[in-house]
Amino acid sequence: MIGVMGRWEPNARGRLEQAALELYVERGFEQTTVAEIAERAGLTERTFFRHFADKREVLFAGADNLQELLVSAVAGAPDSVPPIEAVAAALEAAGGLLQQRSEYSRRRQAVIAANAGLQERELIKLASLASALAGALRKRGVADPAASLTAEAGIAVFKIAFERWVSEASRPELPQLIRESFGELQALTAGK
Amino acid sequence: MIGVMGRWEPNARGRLEQAALELYVERGFEQTTVAEIAERAGLTERTFFRHFADKREVLFAGADNLQELLVSAVAGAPDSVPPIEAVAAALEAAGGLLQQRSEYSRRRQAVIAANAGLQERELIKLASLASALAGALRKRGVADPAASLTAEAGIAVFKIAFERWVSEASRPELPQLIRESFGELQALTAGK
Repeated sequence: MIGVMGRWEPNARGRLEQAALELYVERGFEQTTVAEIAERAGLTERTFFRHFADKREVLFAGADNLQELLVSAVAGAPDSVPPIEAVAAALEAAGGLLQQRSEYSRRRQAVIAANAGLQERELIKLASLASALAGALRKRGVADPAASLTAEAGIAVFKIAFERWVSEASRPELPQLIRESFGELQALTAGK
Repeated sequence: MIGVMGRWEPNARGRLEQAALELYVERGFEQTTVAEIAERAGLTERTFFRHFADKREVLFAGADNLQELLVSAVAGAPDSVPPIEAVAAALEAAGGLLQQRSEYSRRRQAVIAANAGLQERELIKLASLASALAGALRKRGVADPAASLTAEAGIAVFKIAFERWVSEASRPELPQLIRESFGELQALTAGK
């Protein structure tokens, strides 16, 4: 194996993600080791640690991309768009990204649902997304508490839409569920 | 001290909470030990552990009371009250409880804001409150996703109102801030 180390490996990151998720589904998150993930992916542990800090981070590495996408979508919305609309459009775009990996997302969610520590990590990532969204709104000139409130409400909608997406047998599309959930929030807050 | 152990101590729980918070403010959460908290309260470590699992739980013990209050307030709202109104009234009642301990709450929040682990714990407690609220709404016959969405939106409002309450120099009343924030959420989701 020594001769192989450090060699460029095509799509190492994606292969590690796929291998990790397979093993977490088969054996459980706790029971899986980094050595096993690397072996399943046909890579070395050293390669694993070039891409991920630990076996937990494999499941959350996508959150940074999602956050960047949300922030730039809010930043790029036309000035005339109200804050809630900018957030809804950003979350729909993020939903479109996740929709492209729907099988991966569903299986990932099953792994997270089975482990309290991973659920806590997910909550923390969602709170970071809300902070980032609020920051992007403030940059558009939205004052607090409106910026924080819009961001937190948006993440609440996203969370509920995501839960429906991974659990409903009819396999609805995530961006559509996000749009619907914003409509429901509007009706609910109006007391309907 | 042996003769004292097990003796009934008047308001041991409250004295331990007060002593713990004083020490967390003075020395920082990480630097404080259970032995020091017990000593400051004039009690034994054994008494501490009869009331709290560890030094972190001293800060979160109130969340169970809050949850019970929220659940029974939602359960007790008249049938004619829309879900968002039942949740808003429950959170205002909880805000009234916190308002009675406003100095404690402000100092507690400063301790939590200074420690990432405590912030994570706070997020988890808020997520539990949202789940409990959603459960209480389902018992009123509110279907999902409306139940979850209303509960999550309510907790988002509560979080923002709470942050304003502990940070604003003008010392507004928490129930009032919660009521205002529900109004703002309504306006924001309507795209205003």
